Amino acid sequence: MIKIHHLNNSRSHRVLWLLEELNAEYEIIKYQRDKFTNLAPKELKDIHSLGKSPVLEHNGKMIIESAAIVTYIIDQCASENFAPIITDSDYYQYLELMHYAEGSAIMPFLLQLYARFLGDNSKTLQPRITSEIQNHLGFLSTVLGKNEYFYRNKFSGVDIMLSFVLEAGKMSGVLQSFSNLNDLLAKYQDRDAYKKAIELGGKYSLGK
Amino acid sequence: MIKIHHLNNSRSHRVLWLLEELNAEYEIIKYQRDKFTNLAPKELKDIHSLGKSPVLEHNGKMIIESAAIVTYIIDQCASENFAPIITDSDYYQYLELMHYAEGSAIMPFLLQLYARFLGDNSKTLQPRITSEIQNHLGFLSTVLGKNEYFYRNKFSGVDIMLSFVLEAGKMSGVLQSFSNLNDLLAKYQDRDAYKKAIELGGKYSLGK
Repeated sequence: MIKIHHLNNSRSHRVLWLLEELNAEYEIIKYQRDKFTNLAPKELKDIHSLGKSPVLEHNGKMIIESAAIVTYIIDQCASENFAPIITDSDYYQYLELMHYAEGSAIMPFLLQLYARFLGDNSKTLQPRITSEIQNHLGFLSTVLGKNEYFYRNKFSGVDIMLSFVLEAGKMSGVLQSFSNLNDLLAKYQDRDAYKKAIELGGKYSLGK
Repeated sequence: MIKIHHLNNSRSHRVLWLLEELNAEYEIIKYQRDKFTNLAPKELKDIHSLGKSPVLEHNGKMIIESAAIVTYIIDQCASENFAPIITDSDYYQYLELMHYAEGSAIMPFLLQLYARFLGDNSKTLQPRITSEIQNHLGFLSTVLGKNEYFYRNKFSGVDIMLSFVLEAGKMSGVLQSFSNLNDLLAKYQDRDAYKKAIELGGKYSLGK
């Protein structure tokens, strides 16, 4: 059975969410952030030397990186038409967005998170961070357009991956000016599987 | 023919490098960073709304994200055994590292780049940045071990993607303490295709 090494209030939430969407059988092994530093506990280092979450364990294999985990779970647990196959003409649009979520779009939000620790000391960086956040959310708003979901207008792995960017946008107080993205995040959060993942994995405050 | 929208002294170098490794036919369309801000020129916005490089153009399609571009090029131009296929037992190790390069490993180096702009104002962040750089290079050093290359002990898309992390490590002055990674970067830089990419794409100062 698939095991998920799950850190509370982290990117790992979306892995549980996907597993719930697919009605997969799995086991959650829980880890708690340090109350003072908010960092992952050292026990995660025993699972994988990077000491981060999520980590997927299955048949003696460990897989890291959210997008690789999401792809693995879809390949193992989803019905045939849930994700594109390599011979589909729009396959690379999917692959591009799967990489884009953590490879580019989340970057200015992480910079903002670190800049917050520095307070006023980071103010010369703020214009660049703000413009990059607008740049990425603007792009995603155009990709979504009037569709219901990002890819093929149906719920997919891309939604799971990009949800974290929308949550970060909500937390930053800028998502509201992209009404289609704001509505989409509300729709994600209203899905039964999303709620079930919170029930199982614990409170998820990012974006609320 | 494949077109690469190439920004000087950027991640786009490794895309040219891959195309040269595969003896592919392609066209380079060049863009220059602003002399004062070092940012990409506005002309890249006309190619793709994010205004970033690399962008691959082929058969009327535009593909962004280095790892998606690298995957596309390999699928189009490489011989059959250059990359794993989904039914291979080690396929997800490849996928994980393809995502890991830009999704995780490069992050503390980018933070360090931004922290440099802030000078002393960023000093409270430095311990975290330094420890995360050590964490990621330590992991990569373990993955490489005594092998010649990161995956299946032969040159692959993973080397193309992870080379940027090693270049960043060299620039930060920390790669030298991971001798296997340091040697591997020297080996990359000594490959004919790597040198040819610099000749065609212009000077590449990162990591030198």
